[in-house]
Amino acid sequence: MKHVLESQQFDSKTIQKIFAIANALGRDRSLPFKGKIMATLFYEPSTRTRFSFESAMIKLGGNVISTENAGAFSSAAKGETLEDTIRVVSQYADVIVLRHYEKGVSERAAAVSSVPIINAGDGTGQHPTQALLDLYTIKKELGKTEGIRIAFVGDLKNGRTARSLAYLLGKYKHSQMFFISPAQLRIGEDIKAYLDHHAILYQELRSWDSVLGSIDVLYQTRIQKERFKTMREYNKYEGRYVIGLQEAKAMKKNAIIMHPLPRIDEISPEVDALPQAVYFKQAKYGLLVRMALLKFLLS
Amino acid sequence: MKHVLESQQFDSKTIQKIFAIANALGRDRSLPFKGKIMATLFYEPSTRTRFSFESAMIKLGGNVISTENAGAFSSAAKGETLEDTIRVVSQYADVIVLRHYEKGVSERAAAVSSVPIINAGDGTGQHPTQALLDLYTIKKELGKTEGIRIAFVGDLKNGRTARSLAYLLGKYKHSQMFFISPAQLRIGEDIKAYLDHHAILYQELRSWDSVLGSIDVLYQTRIQKERFKTMREYNKYEGRYVIGLQEAKAMKKNAIIMHPLPRIDEISPEVDALPQAVYFKQAKYGLLVRMALLKFLLS
Amino acid sequence: MKHVLESQQFDSKTIQKIFAIANALGRDRSLPFKGKIMATLFYEPSTRTRFSFESAMIKLGGNVISTENAGAFSSAAKGETLEDTIRVVSQYADVIVLRHYEKGVSERAAAVSSVPIINAGDGTGQHPTQALLDLYTIKKELGKTEGIRIAFVGDLKNGRTARSLAYLLGKYKHSQMFFISPAQLRIGEDIKAYLDHHAILYQELRSWDSVLGSIDVLYQTRIQKERFKTMREYNKYEGRYVIGLQEAKAMKKNAIIMHPLPRIDEISPEVDALPQAVYFKQAKYGLLVRMALLKFLLS
Repeated sequence: MKHVLESQQFDSKTIQKIFAIANALGRDRSLPFKGKIMATLFYEPSTRTRFSFESAMIKLGGNVISTENAGAFSSAAKGETLEDTIRVVSQYADVIVLRHYEKGVSERAAAVSSVPIINAGDGTGQHPTQALLDLYTIKKELGKTEGIRIAFVGDLKNGRTARSLAYLLGKYKHSQMFFISPAQLRIGEDIKAYLDHHAILYQELRSWDSVLGSIDVLYQTRIQKERFKTMREYNKYEGRYVIGLQEAKAMKKNAIIMHPLPRIDEISPEVDALPQAVYFKQAKYGLLVRMALLKFLLS
Repeated sequence: MKHVLESQQFDSKTIQKIFAIANALGRDRSLPFKGKIMATLFYEPSTRTRFSFESAMIKLGGNVISTENAGAFSSAAKGETLEDTIRVVSQYADVIVLRHYEKGVSERAAAVSSVPIINAGDGTGQHPTQALLDLYTIKKELGKTEGIRIAFVGDLKNGRTARSLAYLLGKYKHSQMFFISPAQLRIGEDIKAYLDHHAILYQELRSWDSVLGSIDVLYQTRIQKERFKTMREYNKYEGRYVIGLQEAKAMKKNAIIMHPLPRIDEISPEVDALPQAVYFKQAKYGLLVRMALLKFLLS
Repeated sequence: MKHVLESQQFDSKTIQKIFAIANALGRDRSLPFKGKIMATLFYEPSTRTRFSFESAMIKLGGNVISTENAGAFSSAAKGETLEDTIRVVSQYADVIVLRHYEKGVSERAAAVSSVPIINAGDGTGQHPTQALLDLYTIKKELGKTEGIRIAFVGDLKNGRTARSLAYLLGKYKHSQMFFISPAQLRIGEDIKAYLDHHAILYQELRSWDSVLGSIDVLYQTRIQKERFKTMREYNKYEGRYVIGLQEAKAMKKNAIIMHPLPRIDEISPEVDALPQAVYFKQAKYGLLVRMALLKFLLS
């Protein structure tokens, strides 16, 4: 594996290796990346994701050269192609973390880069390290990755995190998935075809009432304002699936509530204190998984 | 002391400890913060303050993950609460330096953070490390912190640096303060109440003529354009208190002129070369004090 | 040499020294700049140049404090002079890399800075390290710096890279230069006077047809949109000198095509794979030259 572009490229053996590295990180005090440089090229700002990668690199002894908003500030504004930018930046850095508002950009980058490209989100495309950290969270919190009964909730059409995690969980035996969304924001046909192919049971629902008491994981996502054309269209869906104390109480005691963040109001703040709420722990797991992934890629 | 939120929390014993660490820094060549990470979260840009903190962290062997303009670029734009942002960032970093345009934000951050929060300015609120470095400047330049006769000049209503330093000096015996400002930009009643409570003598003046020859410190501040609603309102005050060669000459030889910077035209460039002008030295003292504060907080 | 402000200050002896350091870098694994800090102050964004300097500093063991867009975010917006900014930043850093949209700014900075200033481009002024890396590219690719037959192509009036390289090559024996541009974008009279003074042969041409087969170096530049007042004016020149496969074939086999980048469409992508195309290699040479320059300045 040279680049990290989409969840599909992680087979369960690779995932096992990366998770093993992540598990060992706590004991390992070495700084294997001393003198190595990560470039974060963010054409779409995301402080959270950028910080997570930069922190991972630094904790391994490496350094970072960084853009907060490559789109507005770099030669892209002068009309340079992404390919040319990558050809140059890959001579300054040992790994490039790329985030872009356009689907498919990370593959174009990988085609010309002399160093590993990590896709940190490309528009409505993928965000494979998020899926990896989501899976790691499930493994650490539930102790297993097989036989997981999971409900994905919210904007499943545009939200790339739910799509990517569904792909990954599709590799594990006996996963059962529920896709809960408004009719207009349903999960893509490509994911359903993929799950059919892997003989994974799934169901599409308009409401979570019938499954709330039996699932292991409630994967909540935000209805993303920025993916809509008008505020009127957005307002139709926003706030329709809100997890409050009552909903959490209806869940199993040892079930978990996950969220890729940022959270707006689709999970009430009162839920934060419940043991089921693991969405802030996900950030810590994400750091470990990204450290592990960097070790896996660069060693 | 876990967080640094406001000047009031520094008692003179704590200040003494921090200053002692600062004094010892010149001799100390160790890098105690190797592997440690500072996150600078700046919702209101300030290159000067950010650079000062980042340089302090690096000089102690640490690393930095950084935002120039968190407001425009982060999930705040998507509607995430500051509390959620802090909950996540505090898992990536060992200390968070926070600057915000809104008063009271650093306290909200501290309430949910698992790592120390340092308030690097919150709107018209406080900027406690600035006050600390101001006090350190006085100590180094005048050899004492007691019995200081100081005139604060400019926009004392909105300028947080003067407010914070007044608080700190209020802890020292025999301080004498003069607040020199236009009537509409007078120092707040809360500060006056505080000084009354600590039995500190002060006087409010419209002009510095009566005190210029007798003060130890002239603390000049900028009339801040960005705090006014209209240019007309701003223009009324701007340029009213300008220190030129003549004013400097009227001062005692061993008095000092301080300024939190940036300076626009409230101190004439000819004054820069005088021994009384210590406002650029303040930047160096600031670096030392911030290094000392980090050692104090993180060790 | 304390500051790096313009190409003219590099005499051939100094250049020889810097190139010797660059050549030795591959073997040298030491980190001489441990604990040292570079501040990148970019008032005009340029991710490429900033990354190149930051990567160079980090590879030498140093650290970086960085601005992507100092103009919009720093106290400059509040009306602070550049001189005051430099006076402060030079107390936080060991070297300042400065890019500005205004000609002559780096000299103003150098006049007040207590640490070395490196001019990383000042408007239509100079960009001396670009010239240095261009010369290093010629030396490495052609094995010599004397007797070079070079054609500069494009916007020679506003493009500072061609100007700076012409200055530098003017120091070497038997250089022959061709300035190929539209009449309205001709090379400045100052450069021609300089070349006359150094007895360097040059010719101004509207087309490259007569020289393409005999030159050693084709130095292509972009017609810079941002230097024009209207799109109509820009469109007149854009695309007039495009290097395609045919043009490359007309050149000598061991000639090289250089470009300071970003490239828009003035070199066709098919040319990238030819051995004559060295414009992406320039980025790597640039890193080495900037590392060497930093060692030269700071040791």
